[in-house]
Amino acid sequence: MRIVLGVLGTIFFGCLPNNTSAQTNKPNFIIILTDDQGYNDLGSFGSPLIRTPNIDKLAKEGLRLTSFYAQPICGPSRTALLTGSYPLRVAEVNNTKRSHPMVHPDEILLPEILKEVGYRSACIGKWDINGHKQDFEQEELLPTRMGFDYWFGTPSSNDRGINVVYRNEKIIASKITVDTITQIYTSEALEFIDKNKANPFFLYLAHNMPHTRLGASKEFKGKSKFGLYGDAIEEIDWSVGEIKQKLIDLGIEDKTIIVFTSDNGPWRARGTHGGSSFPLRGNKISTWEGGVRVPCVIWGGDNLKSGIVSDQVTSTMDLFPTFASLAGASLPDTLTLDGQDITSLLVTNGRSSELEELYYYYVDTHLQAVRSGEWKLVLPRPRAPEWIPFAKKSLWRHEDMEAVRAMELYNLKNDVGERRDVAQDHPDIVQRLYELITNARSEIGDYNIIGQGARFYDNGERRPDVKNWQSKSIDSIDRNIKLHPFYNDGARNL
Amino acid sequence: MRIVLGVLGTIFFGCLPNNTSAQTNKPNFIIILTDDQGYNDLGSFGSPLIRTPNIDKLAKEGLRLTSFYAQPICGPSRTALLTGSYPLRVAEVNNTKRSHPMVHPDEILLPEILKEVGYRSACIGKWDINGHKQDFEQEELLPTRMGFDYWFGTPSSNDRGINVVYRNEKIIASKITVDTITQIYTSEALEFIDKNKANPFFLYLAHNMPHTRLGASKEFKGKSKFGLYGDAIEEIDWSVGEIKQKLIDLGIEDKTIIVFTSDNGPWRARGTHGGSSFPLRGNKISTWEGGVRVPCVIWGGDNLKSGIVSDQVTSTMDLFPTFASLAGASLPDTLTLDGQDITSLLVTNGRSSELEELYYYYVDTHLQAVRSGEWKLVLPRPRAPEWIPFAKKSLWRHEDMEAVRAMELYNLKNDVGERRDVAQDHPDIVQRLYELITNARSEIGDYNIIGQGARFYDNGERRPDVKNWQSKSIDSIDRNIKLHPFYNDGARNL
Repeated sequence: MRIVLGVLGTIFFGCLPNNTSAQTNKPNFIIILTDDQGYNDLGSFGSPLIRTPNIDKLAKEGLRLTSFYAQPICGPSRTALLTGSYPLRVAEVNNTKRSHPMVHPDEILLPEILKEVGYRSACIGKWDINGHKQDFEQEELLPTRMGFDYWFGTPSSNDRGINVVYRNEKIIASKITVDTITQIYTSEALEFIDKNKANPFFLYLAHNMPHTRLGASKEFKGKSKFGLYGDAIEEIDWSVGEIKQKLIDLGIEDKTIIVFTSDNGPWRARGTHGGSSFPLRGNKISTWEGGVRVPCVIWGGDNLKSGIVSDQVTSTMDLFPTFASLAGASLPDTLTLDGQDITSLLVTNGRSSELEELYYYYVDTHLQAVRSGEWKLVLPRPRAPEWIPFAKKSLWRHEDMEAVRAMELYNLKNDVGERRDVAQDHPDIVQRLYELITNARSEIGDYNIIGQGARFYDNGERRPDVKNWQSKSIDSIDRNIKLHPFYNDGARNL
Repeated sequence: MRIVLGVLGTIFFGCLPNNTSAQTNKPNFIIILTDDQGYNDLGSFGSPLIRTPNIDKLAKEGLRLTSFYAQPICGPSRTALLTGSYPLRVAEVNNTKRSHPMVHPDEILLPEILKEVGYRSACIGKWDINGHKQDFEQEELLPTRMGFDYWFGTPSSNDRGINVVYRNEKIIASKITVDTITQIYTSEALEFIDKNKANPFFLYLAHNMPHTRLGASKEFKGKSKFGLYGDAIEEIDWSVGEIKQKLIDLGIEDKTIIVFTSDNGPWRARGTHGGSSFPLRGNKISTWEGGVRVPCVIWGGDNLKSGIVSDQVTSTMDLFPTFASLAGASLPDTLTLDGQDITSLLVTNGRSSELEELYYYYVDTHLQAVRSGEWKLVLPRPRAPEWIPFAKKSLWRHEDMEAVRAMELYNLKNDVGERRDVAQDHPDIVQRLYELITNARSEIGDYNIIGQGARFYDNGERRPDVKNWQSKSIDSIDRNIKLHPFYNDGARNL
């Protein structure tokens, strides 16, 4: 999983018209990350009810990734995106592992790497890698202390509305309505682009929408065919259109890459205020495809081939090394990333044989499955594992976290809905994928194993809970899970 | 809701080539009813994963009804289909109202009406209007005592496999595998058609699939992209193709009407063994659209216009009066039906202004909503009403039976997913639809009211439970339901 950085940046953007200096040769990066938006909740990903013409146009002009993975819950997903690594590898304050990580200040984040080669970076929107808190007990965890030159947004999610808004290191508003948040973020984003048009920039626009509580401005409220949830997404689509137009107005559209994606699957527990992962199985918090496979569109002006759809396995973790590569940045030799540089995918027809098609499905600290190419191996597990702290809370309504009796194998190429376990037919493939699991447990870790490659900077106990969990052998869990007799009927969660 | 029978049968089938006698002028009827198949689980209703070329071809050559309603659970749905009435109107043994009805032998069923004008009728498949029992304590409840000349099938569902198979009034097999049931039924159906090619017939083919336990024969097992559930449906599609080919081989395809539909929404509680109602809200047992709106295809050889899609409000209850009309049968003056004769819809372009677009959403004895045209009014209710006996059983996983705080209004034309309550914007429409509710409570009944039009033949107490429920005023329930404070976030079932 060590990445190799090359000079693909110059291949990709070598044809830019104003290629007069190393500085102008560096592309700008914009990541637009939505919150709890489902795989199906874009027109270009199959929604029959939500209209997203601006994003669909980006997809038509650029690249649509249909096997793009995030993590199954907000905080870990943002951790993976900003560090290029599985959250379980990433160091946390006090050496613990939280459902919502408190990322260690010593971790290297994407904007820090880009800063070395002249980029200015802004985080506009939701942060949420400081332990899901609304304040900063440790100021080292502020975005402005972790690589971003500018921050405007909220420390955590808007479960109970937006309680506090920061600009850089100061609270500038509290208890603002969720209805206007997308407009405010858009205005901030446009201003940042304007101010930085002459230098390379990285804009990380992390919307609060469509996480509940939902809101939309009066121009969008009541207008979609999918309720307030659809309104919120249609307003985000408007925002994407504004940003693209700004790039065109400034003449920098061909030197800017936009990545549009979501942080995890839809929050079905929120009923009509949640989205859809159709036709995938599962939702937010689960490691069925619907929990972690998210819509992804990558657009690069005239530099990306038009209308390509790629099913190659990719993830939010790939953005870190890919952007570093395109920017000509170098990474510390000591830094091991899980993401890989997918530049070759961007400049080809959407498929690159040099990339490893691998993804490990973690919930919190729990390794539940692995994908290798078209195959996915799902490990046995009890319904509500005691080592997933939120598993027993009814609020989560994680209905797809049902018990898994024995190892299950799915062919995601033929069976994207994970309906048919074919483990019995392919013992060789099960064996091969289980070896990958063993590798991951050894290198990254599992709920009861600290990975050799996991980063823990502080002295003292590492992962306080591990000792207790170690009393259970993974092998005994893999083999001895008993299910209710109704299991054979397909009944779940009994 | 009284129906008027005319001579539309001769309009519809007057152009038949062999129109030499009253007898041959009568069309044959085939109803193919599946069990727990979701709105989305046909290619022609949007499934991206289940292949149903034969049914899709029927739809392409005939009529696809997109607002066609059943009842939300098996037994009541079959009761409605066979009696042309809401189950709450229908008399039951011992004057009670069961979740799975035990239909009174004095009720008039569709085959009895058709018998009067020379039809021979067969029920092949699942019966389930005898109180969801595997045996017949009362032989009067056998299909052969209630109008069918022939029965081959199972008394109830296959929750735990197929325990017993009847031919007419005798058990001929027990504990047979579910894998071959679709093939066996198809063979029986083809034989019945063969034997009755010279006389008008009514074939009611009520598949056990795709209700769990699922099964498929070796030709179909493992072949679909939607697991065993998809295999089962693809085998049903094969069965439809066999039946259509038989009609063609016998030269009776232009005098036969095939109706293909499902008995209720998908049983999502069965996980990967359940189907999909996408993009509708809800599933089996709920009265959100996904629980009761089912796929429906009507095909009539060259007599039906090709490829028409109609969103007109129709239901399984309409088949009784429509078939009676087409067959030239007369109904007893004293019989009040809830279904209406939709022959005019079949012979027009899929829309008939003379039809009333009305549907009442009942679960068991509980009236929960009404649809009038494009509008649906949903009544307030607690999450698990004590008057729905199965509401508290965890097995049902009726996640969409959440509490409803106040009356909600949906525009199903603009908002098929029932995402946006617009009751506040349209008090006049709420008022109009609430008057329809009042009519239904008075005529058909509710959990605590016996409808004036409800049929109770036996002496003695009527609806034993009613007295207890009457202590609660409907008005007080309509107004005073309190929800968890998270409701405003869209969180449900807390």
